[in-house]
Amino acid sequence: MADRKTALVISAHAADFVWRCGGAIALHAEKGYEVTVVCLSFGERGESAKLWKEKDMTLERVKAARRAEAEKAAAALGVADLVFFDLGDYPLRLTDEDKFRLVEVIRKVQPAFMLSHSKYDPYNTDHMYATEVALETRMIAQAWGHNPGQKVLAAPQLYLFEPHQTEQMGWTPDVFLDITPVWEKKWAAIQCMEGQEHLWAYYRNVAENRANHFMRNSGGQSGGRKAKYAEGFQAVFPRTVDEL
Amino acid sequence: MADRKTALVISAHAADFVWRCGGAIALHAEKGYEVTVVCLSFGERGESAKLWKEKDMTLERVKAARRAEAEKAAAALGVADLVFFDLGDYPLRLTDEDKFRLVEVIRKVQPAFMLSHSKYDPYNTDHMYATEVALETRMIAQAWGHNPGQKVLAAPQLYLFEPHQTEQMGWTPDVFLDITPVWEKKWAAIQCMEGQEHLWAYYRNVAENRANHFMRNSGGQSGGRKAKYAEGFQAVFPRTVDEL
Amino acid sequence: MADRKTALVISAHAADFVWRCGGAIALHAEKGYEVTVVCLSFGERGESAKLWKEKDMTLERVKAARRAEAEKAAAALGVADLVFFDLGDYPLRLTDEDKFRLVEVIRKVQPAFMLSHSKYDPYNTDHMYATEVALETRMIAQAWGHNPGQKVLAAPQLYLFEPHQTEQMGWTPDVFLDITPVWEKKWAAIQCMEGQEHLWAYYRNVAENRANHFMRNSGGQSGGRKAKYAEGFQAVFPRTVDEL
Amino acid sequence: MADRKTALVISAHAADFVWRCGGAIALHAEKGYEVTVVCLSFGERGESAKLWKEKDMTLERVKAARRAEAEKAAAALGVADLVFFDLGDYPLRLTDEDKFRLVEVIRKVQPAFMLSHSKYDPYNTDHMYATEVALETRMIAQAWGHNPGQKVLAAPQLYLFEPHQTEQMGWTPDVFLDITPVWEKKWAAIQCMEGQEHLWAYYRNVAENRANHFMRNSGGQSGGRKAKYAEGFQAVFPRTVDEL
Amino acid sequence: MADRKTALVISAHAADFVWRCGGAIALHAEKGYEVTVVCLSFGERGESAKLWKEKDMTLERVKAARRAEAEKAAAALGVADLVFFDLGDYPLRLTDEDKFRLVEVIRKVQPAFMLSHSKYDPYNTDHMYATEVALETRMIAQAWGHNPGQKVLAAPQLYLFEPHQTEQMGWTPDVFLDITPVWEKKWAAIQCMEGQEHLWAYYRNVAENRANHFMRNSGGQSGGRKAKYAEGFQAVFPRTVDEL
Amino acid sequence: MADRKTALVISAHAADFVWRCGGAIALHAEKGYEVTVVCLSFGERGESAKLWKEKDMTLERVKAARRAEAEKAAAALGVADLVFFDLGDYPLRLTDEDKFRLVEVIRKVQPAFMLSHSKYDPYNTDHMYATEVALETRMIAQAWGHNPGQKVLAAPQLYLFEPHQTEQMGWTPDVFLDITPVWEKKWAAIQCMEGQEHLWAYYRNVAENRANHFMRNSGGQSGGRKAKYAEGFQAVFPRTVDEL
Repeated sequence: MADRKTALVISAHAADFVWRCGGAIALHAEKGYEVTVVCLSFGERGESAKLWKEKDMTLERVKAARRAEAEKAAAALGVADLVFFDLGDYPLRLTDEDKFRLVEVIRKVQPAFMLSHSKYDPYNTDHMYATEVALETRMIAQAWGHNPGQKVLAAPQLYLFEPHQTEQMGWTPDVFLDITPVWEKKWAAIQCMEGQEHLWAYYRNVAENRANHFMRNSGGQSGGRKAKYAEGFQAVFPRTVDEL
Repeated sequence: MADRKTALVISAHAADFVWRCGGAIALHAEKGYEVTVVCLSFGERGESAKLWKEKDMTLERVKAARRAEAEKAAAALGVADLVFFDLGDYPLRLTDEDKFRLVEVIRKVQPAFMLSHSKYDPYNTDHMYATEVALETRMIAQAWGHNPGQKVLAAPQLYLFEPHQTEQMGWTPDVFLDITPVWEKKWAAIQCMEGQEHLWAYYRNVAENRANHFMRNSGGQSGGRKAKYAEGFQAVFPRTVDEL
Repeated sequence: MADRKTALVISAHAADFVWRCGGAIALHAEKGYEVTVVCLSFGERGESAKLWKEKDMTLERVKAARRAEAEKAAAALGVADLVFFDLGDYPLRLTDEDKFRLVEVIRKVQPAFMLSHSKYDPYNTDHMYATEVALETRMIAQAWGHNPGQKVLAAPQLYLFEPHQTEQMGWTPDVFLDITPVWEKKWAAIQCMEGQEHLWAYYRNVAENRANHFMRNSGGQSGGRKAKYAEGFQAVFPRTVDEL
Repeated sequence: MADRKTALVISAHAADFVWRCGGAIALHAEKGYEVTVVCLSFGERGESAKLWKEKDMTLERVKAARRAEAEKAAAALGVADLVFFDLGDYPLRLTDEDKFRLVEVIRKVQPAFMLSHSKYDPYNTDHMYATEVALETRMIAQAWGHNPGQKVLAAPQLYLFEPHQTEQMGWTPDVFLDITPVWEKKWAAIQCMEGQEHLWAYYRNVAENRANHFMRNSGGQSGGRKAKYAEGFQAVFPRTVDEL
Repeated sequence: MADRKTALVISAHAADFVWRCGGAIALHAEKGYEVTVVCLSFGERGESAKLWKEKDMTLERVKAARRAEAEKAAAALGVADLVFFDLGDYPLRLTDEDKFRLVEVIRKVQPAFMLSHSKYDPYNTDHMYATEVALETRMIAQAWGHNPGQKVLAAPQLYLFEPHQTEQMGWTPDVFLDITPVWEKKWAAIQCMEGQEHLWAYYRNVAENRANHFMRNSGGQSGGRKAKYAEGFQAVFPRTVDEL
Repeated sequence: MADRKTALVISAHAADFVWRCGGAIALHAEKGYEVTVVCLSFGERGESAKLWKEKDMTLERVKAARRAEAEKAAAALGVADLVFFDLGDYPLRLTDEDKFRLVEVIRKVQPAFMLSHSKYDPYNTDHMYATEVALETRMIAQAWGHNPGQKVLAAPQLYLFEPHQTEQMGWTPDVFLDITPVWEKKWAAIQCMEGQEHLWAYYRNVAENRANHFMRNSGGQSGGRKAKYAEGFQAVFPRTVDEL
């Protein structure tokens, strides 16, 4: 138990965890982390255009399809626990009760690190709202007076995963993770997202180009570490180290 | 040779490396790093007020005093190589030849990481100029066509060490280094700076409070790592990792 | 219908659309655009000081006076549809139902572009809240699963119109619009705002000085386009073009 | 009455006003200001870890202990009026009714200046929320149509007091206040905070180092004003002056 | 001598001091300040389009005309000492010798405060260069080892005066100065700038609108201080005070 | 002549114009623009690692190879005039004479718009230096007193083309250009860069993903304009328009 390694992803919509940190999930799962993914909504209203263009579509059918896709992708990535909060999207809303439920998950997982969205997103206010919620619930989970007796949360890093159109979101990666060893898993998970096929190649391109950045920042033309696929993340909090 | 570990500090004035990264130097020296410190100037004009208030002071005497203090401090910290460029201060100026000389040092050291000043400093333009020089010479050292045949530089991190009045400089630490094991060395080095005794307690306070930040970001009230002294740094470039 | 040109203004208080984008409204109306203006409130509590200084004033009388002024100004500008949401001000608040009502308006109008307030305003939190609402409702209006069957919104630009004390709001114009041809209309509309007469000359000065900026950025002393009155706007989203 | 001098502190949790602006309170109290402090919560859940580690602790006992500490500290500082809103923390929440209650206080006090938290705090969302509330209620208090007949608020400065880990909060001080004459009072007040003893030395260090900044910005080595303890503040609004 | 009050303006081109801080000069002159203005160039190449459009114009004639205008304007404002460095413009360049000459002026004046341009100006690189020079020479003037024996500079505030197109320059005023009592002098000085008549009304509008900001920030509709003309400034350094 | 359309690219190294704005060049060339490209250096030292790894390489041979590649690429793109300044790289340096030579080119071309690098680049200080030079020479070209009698420059937009690792450079695109019609030309030009084959696929990925952004910002799932390849640019100056 002492050596249990865990991580937690807070995803606004069902597919976000796949595009944005599928590699990190698969890689850490292989390293023995139990990765929990919380999908606050299915993205049923706002991120399922292809499904809604089908005839006689209903909200329940969209949600079911999105759930099935997410479950399949999670399995491909090696997610330990996939939790659907089913709170609705466009707009996503959390009551204090919903937040306390998320705090329960955080405390149960006791993550070594957390992953969520960029701080700003003028295209998709659900995304930045999810990050506000991540920060707020992280704080509540640290409070000794919230549900006294439970194990309180320490100070896990919150990594912001890569948004669409990074520059418009003011998102700047400060760490690149080599996901080459697990690329096949991420690519398989991406292909589970049948409703958003127009994004498959897009995120393969992202992974390839982030690998270029990985190499450049590890030595470039002078012996940079080879990497074929990578993901970028922005850390919210400072690191604490014993060696630079 | 393959396992030789090295680091390089580029210090605008003779004392900067002591206040701002003396702990990092001592800590890495203990870990087997050969740490080279380049003092671009002695801080003889602008950072030696106490000496200049003495009677019959001359520039050469100030420089000699500052050099002696820096050498004593470097010895206390375990600096492997202390290099004085003696370029003058207030203002500090580097010709292209001076820069190429610095490139020589960089290539010879092949540092795993570099340390220099904050990007901005309206109080002390020498400081921000030193960082511009650090970035420019890092780039030149990476160029295959600069002195072809020499070993080119890879992509070492450039850490910006803590300036005075951090908020006015727009400096934000993203890594805290626990320097508790070497504090006595840093404190000894600080006390070598006889001309700036008014700063001794100031930088002890900084080290103590950065240790508070270290603890807070490693768990806080919920089991944070104990640390009594720490230093903060801001990384210029993204990291490349295999695990978050 | 295919060639119908439309625009939508979301105004926190009844008078904002006059000062901040009255020229844009009148100009586009002359070009055949149907311009819809939504006033979320009348500005009855917070922007009607002059009226409240009168004897025996009531909230209903203030609202009626503000409505009358806004209607007169809208007529002067050629507004196609002036919609009062009457949600109260200082503070302005929208429930999800209020937001869905605004989504209805957005979808009905299908604007080629939208106009609202600056992202930040420490003097007037209603203003920045209106912009948050504009971004959120734009997103909902784009969701295929929100009221399926309705025509979903495409990706209209959101222009932020000029706030009071631009620098304090972090607002930076990236487009200047020549409103010289419709200045008389804007000036007439401004004069409808009897309760805020202290601002008339202020906004005439703004229009004159923005014309100076228009000229400077179109050639300056070397043949800049003449303009006597202009308005500035900040675009939230990138443009998509076939020629630079 | 005309010469009555007043100030208002809006503190998210019971202890914030002590660490962050205790010197300003004591100093202005000595100058004849009536200083009102509003504690929106006791910090009972999130800032009372030491108490919660005691056996059989209850929320009411924590609140009572925190109230007692705050009252003692306020007495030491010379606070004229200490108001507990008791709204709960982690998370702190204000309904519109709570905000109107705060508006009542603001209007009653008619502060020459206000003090609250930094605009951003990823560690503690209560803090930045309190500042949002401060700006919003300041705006409402200025509205002639809010409770017509009451004396409306003019345009008091809002100073943001020093947060923990200033750089992570994006907080930049633009004014340093010499609190040397009242340091003993602040130190006494700090020592009232028995539940947070780990912060006592931390904030003494802060006060000493801010005094260094005070001296540096008032002349430094060339005759800077002596100061042994100081506090830093960031002003939200521009000043209006008759002499630079 | 102890009570001698002084200020120093560093103006890139001959006319800048008139538009941007003519009111501050006149006001402080009336208060007994000796105000020194250094014009680094005449703006002969880049800010004299109207003159260059005349027949048979030469550089010397332009410089003479600009000098005459500046002298007339300085007289109108009550400038104590108007110093022309005549270094050329578009581009403006200072050698170290030029900078040391400026340091001499700074040390001789021992200004209570300094005034110069905005930090950034993509339209006019001379402007931002002048500010870099102001910061660098301020630093050199503070160095005890620069021309030992001279009285070193203390820590005067550097105010950045208002640029053209403030938002594009990232300039944000944090202090508004009421120049109503000296407006006639500033207006007279402005009218001395015959070569730039197109800017007269522009800067009158600026002064009027800054007065609106002055009033708004001193109380607005609730008793704000009356002001008809004002100037805005951005302070580079924190203030040191004994009362907020 | 009156209808002559022109554009100017200022490229720090020989290959930059290909990766970063090859599509814009080809597209505007097809539209009848005469596009001039100035290569300030060949990138011979810093961007020719592959060549330097060959045996017996010399600076002249590298420069010749880079020149040949650039000429071939320029031909593929339809560049009207390719100008080599041959100023050296890593570091790139321009004397005032070099800058005046560039001003000559600018005035001769009289570009409708200019293209250069991002404002910031900690990896490659040549890039940001080229942009500083672009702004400075644009300013000089506008000065009536610089080489009086020549036609002065108006106020062309300066677009900053896409750097490598956009987020690290603080570069944010505000316009996307559809380059689908000329993609084959850009791809051909890219393939001329034999010394940097490792970047070919990288920039194809960039073009594909920018097309995704183009579509998203022109309507997305709701009828966005199809585009298979695009380029992004950041405008330095505001636009002046007659319609939003």
